[in-house]
Amino acid sequence: MDLKIVGGTVVTDRETYPAEIGVAGGRIVQIAQKIDAEAGQTLDAAGCYVMPGGIDMHTHLDMPFGGTVSVDDFETGTRAAAFGGTTSVIDFAIQGKGQSLTDTVNTWKKKAEGKAVFDYGFHVAVTDLTEAVLAELPAMVAAGVPSFKCFLAYKGALMIDDGAFFRILGKAKECGALVMLHAENGEILDVLIKNALAKGQTEPKYHALTRPPEAEGEATSRGIAIAHMAGAPLYIVHLTCREALAEVKRARDLGWPVYAETCPQYLLKSFDNYLEPGFEGAKYVMSPPLRDKSNWADLWTGLVMDDLQVVSTDHCPFNFKGQKEMGLKSFAQIPNGAPGIEHRLMLLYQFGVRQGRISMNRFMDLVSAAPARLFGLSPRKGAVAVGSDADLVLWDPEAAWEISAQTHHQNVDYTPYEGVSGKGKPRVVLSAGRVIVQEDRFTGQPGTGRFLERRPFGR
Amino acid sequence: MDLKIVGGTVVTDRETYPAEIGVAGGRIVQIAQKIDAEAGQTLDAAGCYVMPGGIDMHTHLDMPFGGTVSVDDFETGTRAAAFGGTTSVIDFAIQGKGQSLTDTVNTWKKKAEGKAVFDYGFHVAVTDLTEAVLAELPAMVAAGVPSFKCFLAYKGALMIDDGAFFRILGKAKECGALVMLHAENGEILDVLIKNALAKGQTEPKYHALTRPPEAEGEATSRGIAIAHMAGAPLYIVHLTCREALAEVKRARDLGWPVYAETCPQYLLKSFDNYLEPGFEGAKYVMSPPLRDKSNWADLWTGLVMDDLQVVSTDHCPFNFKGQKEMGLKSFAQIPNGAPGIEHRLMLLYQFGVRQGRISMNRFMDLVSAAPARLFGLSPRKGAVAVGSDADLVLWDPEAAWEISAQTHHQNVDYTPYEGVSGKGKPRVVLSAGRVIVQEDRFTGQPGTGRFLERRPFGR
Amino acid sequence: MDLKIVGGTVVTDRETYPAEIGVAGGRIVQIAQKIDAEAGQTLDAAGCYVMPGGIDMHTHLDMPFGGTVSVDDFETGTRAAAFGGTTSVIDFAIQGKGQSLTDTVNTWKKKAEGKAVFDYGFHVAVTDLTEAVLAELPAMVAAGVPSFKCFLAYKGALMIDDGAFFRILGKAKECGALVMLHAENGEILDVLIKNALAKGQTEPKYHALTRPPEAEGEATSRGIAIAHMAGAPLYIVHLTCREALAEVKRARDLGWPVYAETCPQYLLKSFDNYLEPGFEGAKYVMSPPLRDKSNWADLWTGLVMDDLQVVSTDHCPFNFKGQKEMGLKSFAQIPNGAPGIEHRLMLLYQFGVRQGRISMNRFMDLVSAAPARLFGLSPRKGAVAVGSDADLVLWDPEAAWEISAQTHHQNVDYTPYEGVSGKGKPRVVLSAGRVIVQEDRFTGQPGTGRFLERRPFGR
Amino acid sequence: MDLKIVGGTVVTDRETYPAEIGVAGGRIVQIAQKIDAEAGQTLDAAGCYVMPGGIDMHTHLDMPFGGTVSVDDFETGTRAAAFGGTTSVIDFAIQGKGQSLTDTVNTWKKKAEGKAVFDYGFHVAVTDLTEAVLAELPAMVAAGVPSFKCFLAYKGALMIDDGAFFRILGKAKECGALVMLHAENGEILDVLIKNALAKGQTEPKYHALTRPPEAEGEATSRGIAIAHMAGAPLYIVHLTCREALAEVKRARDLGWPVYAETCPQYLLKSFDNYLEPGFEGAKYVMSPPLRDKSNWADLWTGLVMDDLQVVSTDHCPFNFKGQKEMGLKSFAQIPNGAPGIEHRLMLLYQFGVRQGRISMNRFMDLVSAAPARLFGLSPRKGAVAVGSDADLVLWDPEAAWEISAQTHHQNVDYTPYEGVSGKGKPRVVLSAGRVIVQEDRFTGQPGTGRFLERRPFGR
Repeated sequence: MDLKIVGGTVVTDRETYPAEIGVAGGRIVQIAQKIDAEAGQTLDAAGCYVMPGGIDMHTHLDMPFGGTVSVDDFETGTRAAAFGGTTSVIDFAIQGKGQSLTDTVNTWKKKAEGKAVFDYGFHVAVTDLTEAVLAELPAMVAAGVPSFKCFLAYKGALMIDDGAFFRILGKAKECGALVMLHAENGEILDVLIKNALAKGQTEPKYHALTRPPEAEGEATSRGIAIAHMAGAPLYIVHLTCREALAEVKRARDLGWPVYAETCPQYLLKSFDNYLEPGFEGAKYVMSPPLRDKSNWADLWTGLVMDDLQVVSTDHCPFNFKGQKEMGLKSFAQIPNGAPGIEHRLMLLYQFGVRQGRISMNRFMDLVSAAPARLFGLSPRKGAVAVGSDADLVLWDPEAAWEISAQTHHQNVDYTPYEGVSGKGKPRVVLSAGRVIVQEDRFTGQPGTGRFLERRPFGR
Repeated sequence: MDLKIVGGTVVTDRETYPAEIGVAGGRIVQIAQKIDAEAGQTLDAAGCYVMPGGIDMHTHLDMPFGGTVSVDDFETGTRAAAFGGTTSVIDFAIQGKGQSLTDTVNTWKKKAEGKAVFDYGFHVAVTDLTEAVLAELPAMVAAGVPSFKCFLAYKGALMIDDGAFFRILGKAKECGALVMLHAENGEILDVLIKNALAKGQTEPKYHALTRPPEAEGEATSRGIAIAHMAGAPLYIVHLTCREALAEVKRARDLGWPVYAETCPQYLLKSFDNYLEPGFEGAKYVMSPPLRDKSNWADLWTGLVMDDLQVVSTDHCPFNFKGQKEMGLKSFAQIPNGAPGIEHRLMLLYQFGVRQGRISMNRFMDLVSAAPARLFGLSPRKGAVAVGSDADLVLWDPEAAWEISAQTHHQNVDYTPYEGVSGKGKPRVVLSAGRVIVQEDRFTGQPGTGRFLERRPFGR
Repeated sequence: MDLKIVGGTVVTDRETYPAEIGVAGGRIVQIAQKIDAEAGQTLDAAGCYVMPGGIDMHTHLDMPFGGTVSVDDFETGTRAAAFGGTTSVIDFAIQGKGQSLTDTVNTWKKKAEGKAVFDYGFHVAVTDLTEAVLAELPAMVAAGVPSFKCFLAYKGALMIDDGAFFRILGKAKECGALVMLHAENGEILDVLIKNALAKGQTEPKYHALTRPPEAEGEATSRGIAIAHMAGAPLYIVHLTCREALAEVKRARDLGWPVYAETCPQYLLKSFDNYLEPGFEGAKYVMSPPLRDKSNWADLWTGLVMDDLQVVSTDHCPFNFKGQKEMGLKSFAQIPNGAPGIEHRLMLLYQFGVRQGRISMNRFMDLVSAAPARLFGLSPRKGAVAVGSDADLVLWDPEAAWEISAQTHHQNVDYTPYEGVSGKGKPRVVLSAGRVIVQEDRFTGQPGTGRFLERRPFGR
Repeated sequence: MDLKIVGGTVVTDRETYPAEIGVAGGRIVQIAQKIDAEAGQTLDAAGCYVMPGGIDMHTHLDMPFGGTVSVDDFETGTRAAAFGGTTSVIDFAIQGKGQSLTDTVNTWKKKAEGKAVFDYGFHVAVTDLTEAVLAELPAMVAAGVPSFKCFLAYKGALMIDDGAFFRILGKAKECGALVMLHAENGEILDVLIKNALAKGQTEPKYHALTRPPEAEGEATSRGIAIAHMAGAPLYIVHLTCREALAEVKRARDLGWPVYAETCPQYLLKSFDNYLEPGFEGAKYVMSPPLRDKSNWADLWTGLVMDDLQVVSTDHCPFNFKGQKEMGLKSFAQIPNGAPGIEHRLMLLYQFGVRQGRISMNRFMDLVSAAPARLFGLSPRKGAVAVGSDADLVLWDPEAAWEISAQTHHQNVDYTPYEGVSGKGKPRVVLSAGRVIVQEDRFTGQPGTGRFLERRPFGR
């Protein structure tokens, strides 16, 4: 036995109980009241929860966007994530015009290789659907990439039309993939943005005002209807508002296989942040935008009642200096995205678990177990079970923290959560049985992360 | 006094009472228990309802479509309509690619002039939105054409994108127009049609199978959401199914100004008709297609509860011989449309009023008063009120009829209602105080119909 | 011809047009552009709307309640109503324990005879259902009382159980009556009231806090479900809140014959009024109580979209001095009710029509035409039609008013609307062709009102 | 180590993985890839799932009803249950008129002591609420009985009024109990039953026809509304139809803590069974009754989407001979109830898992993990986790079975599932580490079952 963890309380998405855990060959080999066997290393988890590491299935590391590139690569990004208790990411490989999907995924694999400090997978985003690309989809599934992302927003760039979306869904159903949807009506946004710019409305807040929640609600409704016509399941990414949530509920009440995630920023930040003085609002320019605070309670209810299954980050960091500032003259030139990969578990623990909105088990489901189940990683990831990867976190529920760009590990010059404080963070983080973070020190190695070949959806 | 009508029972959308009606100058000048004044002509309405003539606000007379032209022009079409108790039509002037709207409406005015036997108006269908066309919309309203039709179906032909639709709605709101929507998702239909043809599925029934009700439900939902974002009212044309009706109800429950019509064919015919032997199914090829019979009860409920406000015909006749037969090798080549302008009131009276589904007053609302109110003709049309045009029908509730292409007055070689029989039809029909049909004889004159300058919506 | 009205604009629930009206024998005999015939009296309606008089179908005149009696009797109450443009009432004859319904209605007829200044009808409230009473219901319909009221509130007094309610509905369906429901869960209220009093919570506001909107929503839902099981139509009286409205909408979306009214106080006053200093809150003690202001917009939407069909008053006046004060030590001893019979049309015109929430035609429907249709008085009442009773109001849309107990005609020492001002009130009021109010002077006679034998529901 | 289980695949409500399980002192002490320690007994689970035993939280053993007593006592009932893989029951201790709750539970404890072959708990049914009984509720929770059942049906017997129900909910919220509701409107049923009997409608099918699904929907709606007013969670027992399910969905969409169970009979049997020849229909007389088959799909969807959380049996067996026959002359005299405790897991596995409606993990949740979580037994029961009771089943997915009263172990002379066959049943069943069933032989001992002191709800 390589390692054992003693003295802690195991927490999964369903159970909480005291036990010792034995690890060998990077996997959990034993869970017991008492492990008698010797181990190369013993970790004392006294006062800690022992739980599966987080899975962040919505990240954009080293991603080109709007003439620049997101500033966390697979090394800085996964390292920062590890500090927060996340031990796997699924990043988006985004097809370029005319590019094959195989080439797309290979491009992203090269970004990750030699850099990632823990395991990683990819979704592939289909932005240019040809017959050849359609034919390529089953090979993606076979290659361990069983999730395809589509955009109904970003007209003239990433957006595809309803027909292409429908065809992708039809093929996904055949080959066992889960289609993921960015649901905003890009046609409407395009008119609103042009109208705003024509009126000289260029400040950051107009980013939000030209992307109304109704346009997200509409695209969510449409996406669900089209998925239903195709007979395929659907996963809505970064859902932000009651308009969209109502559509997800309606579908689920009918028994349709529709799933959705939200992100910490939509639970904790709001439209008001766009009104911060000067150009500060640019820090929050992301798509969909932050919404009115009145949505928070609806989203928390969605998380409690399982109408929302996952909390991911949509981590897509751009420096305020030099990058966000590209949009000083026009919100339409601000790179879309914000950092968050490091703080997801801490924020959800503090504002969810500690403040009584969700249970500890539900917390584990949202950040780890559900992503594993939906994206073909269960029970290898997201579980504390014999045979599972020893991606484990010793979580100290009383450890205090305060977020600041001065001290965070993300490679970006600001954080939307500057000054936010709370309790509960990792004491030790293991990836495949190796300690990669201990007492706020990084002890891992770039390049030790492995590409995750994920199973088809529902199989 | 030019004419008086005695002995009848006046029926409007709200009241039923015995009274005499006096007409002068083409208008109603008196309603009284007893009219003492002399009149040039006296009509005996004993045993009859005296009611406002029908308004058919969805017709396609003399319309080019798919390389051919609908076979009723403004003379044959309005004359046939008059036989059935309809005394006004609002026809669709359909913009050609690059054509101005003014030119479009003028083109249609020329089709009607000298031909129509009663008054007529136009909606204008916007199929090619440029800045110039957008700027032209207020002039349409000013010219008495305050209703704009948009298509979310017919990809590559009449379909416009969501952005164009949104811009039209925004302009319509400003200038007081009601936007009308053909709600089917043309992108999805296009994929389904191509898939079907690729598989050799060419018979008429595939017309329906490639236009599923879910695609109508989706487009209805989307159209409503976009209208709501624009702050504009919306009118859904030819609603056929519960999926679409549910969306209308949802909007109306929220207090949104959303309206909808259905047509007799969707209440009385069904998908089963596409299965008639040989090529007979082609007779029912229209868009949206006929649906499963289970929708009938939902549509009737919608009519009763005012979630559907209007029954129109979508009269668009093509001969079976020579025209429908263009699609012998492929349903996609069958001209879309079917006749019905003559029989709307008779069918709705028989299957609605006589069979106890709707009241006599509701009948009048659906076929006459509501179209007048929604489309800027009230109280000139759709009412039995002092000052209103004397477009009146003496309706004999006991007169029996049987529909047949052998005897109907429509200029087309078949009818979807062949052999259907019932009771209740006009004994006398007046347009602007002139008797144009009496005891099944036409006594009117082509060209006496006037262009109706309609008022803006809601004003 | 006894009388003609010239120079005005006729307004009904559907139409608006200039016309002259001729009256003979108490009824409208002619509507014309110009009436040539001589008339005994000519009223100049220049600048006025000529419209059907209001019908207040929810009043409690001369009613015993909680050891006292409402202070307006049929003379003072109908006279006050006439000043405000109301020309008919339907009052509630309330069965005493062990009393027959025939006796109940006769008791109320005696209250009205010789006193009422315009026509009146009765609903009968069934509070003690025996086999004999059940058997008596058809006779009520035959006697012109085709509406039965049931209470699910007032435990130990007026409340009946679900079984009795169900049996009444079943009988009502057979004999053509419309059942009216006071929808609050009396069992829950009873617990809440006892709990409050046990805690010494005795001020007027606790009247509202012990009758939560959820208890109204629940009883509305239950009432509708039971009516549906009985196959009978249902009319919800004095609906106050979104919880109840949602249930009505849900039923109507299903096509169920469910109707509802609200009252001006629920559109214009709120829970805040209970917080007025001293014992002032007692003025607003009625059941259901005033609600949070956020309900106002929902109720207005309900009125616009026809989910609410009627605005009545629930006029039930008790003097502040001596009557309301019976509850100085406990809200549970305050007589329930407030005055309003005089101001319904003025308030709804000012805050509905003038402030742009509803159209003039919709106003007429809510206060006159719809009550007539639903309660078996159409087209005799609620219409401007040949043959209808000449219950007409010449409404001056520019006449200013301010409400005060100092000047109102109700026989009560306060009004909830003290100091409220607006424009639009009657210049002349006719009942059955007789002028009963002219320029703020009463010209009618007590005892001229007739008992209205109403027709069965839907016949 | 007392016992180890090797060669099997562990299945819980969330995970599926191969592992060995070690048991000592009646509890699970180790889960490992390979257990090296010696064990007193080794069970070979090759080809089997190793899963937590079923928890049947709705049984009526040894229960007096309608002048007779259910025929399975705690010995025969738990033994039969064990044959089917159930290892815990929670039975209903039903208060008699005037009886204290302590006495009630003690009465039921005596029924179980010395008889039960595995662990058992009790819910207490409150049928006669006095101040004393209300005050007794917290003591019930303290004594390990944190679930109170209320009946809105059985007028004149078990039914309580809305006020009593509301008070129980309020107290339950304070002391941490979950209120369980039999949701049918007993007032309506009482009228319908009397009406039917008055018409001579006495056959078994009238049992169902006098208990319409709308009456269940209504009571479910009401129960939820009252629980919401009390701020308390609610659990709906034996939900049967879409009317009731819609109410549960509506509540859950709002985030309200509402839960519900259904039973195998409502998924597999229908109203048609009441039409079986002779008096056979009496076998299916239970409350609520079997419904139209069209409800099956809705219920399965509810189970999949977690709108229904539990499948229990409502096992309440009466012999056809002598007991059911008490109602030969009137369905109202047939004892309500049917057997099923033995076959719950087999039926749900066959028709749920094998037929592809639910996953294996969902199956475990419905029959074991969810009851444990909701009723204060987790993680002691319902889990395969270190520290949990070794209530384990070795489930052979390929073992074939056919149900027959000839061979079943229930002490009753018929089964509703006579002749039903399928695959999947226990090979070995353990209760607290002891083998109580092995290869279809019972190896346990009456009286070894322990009373389960359950934790308060949500704590």
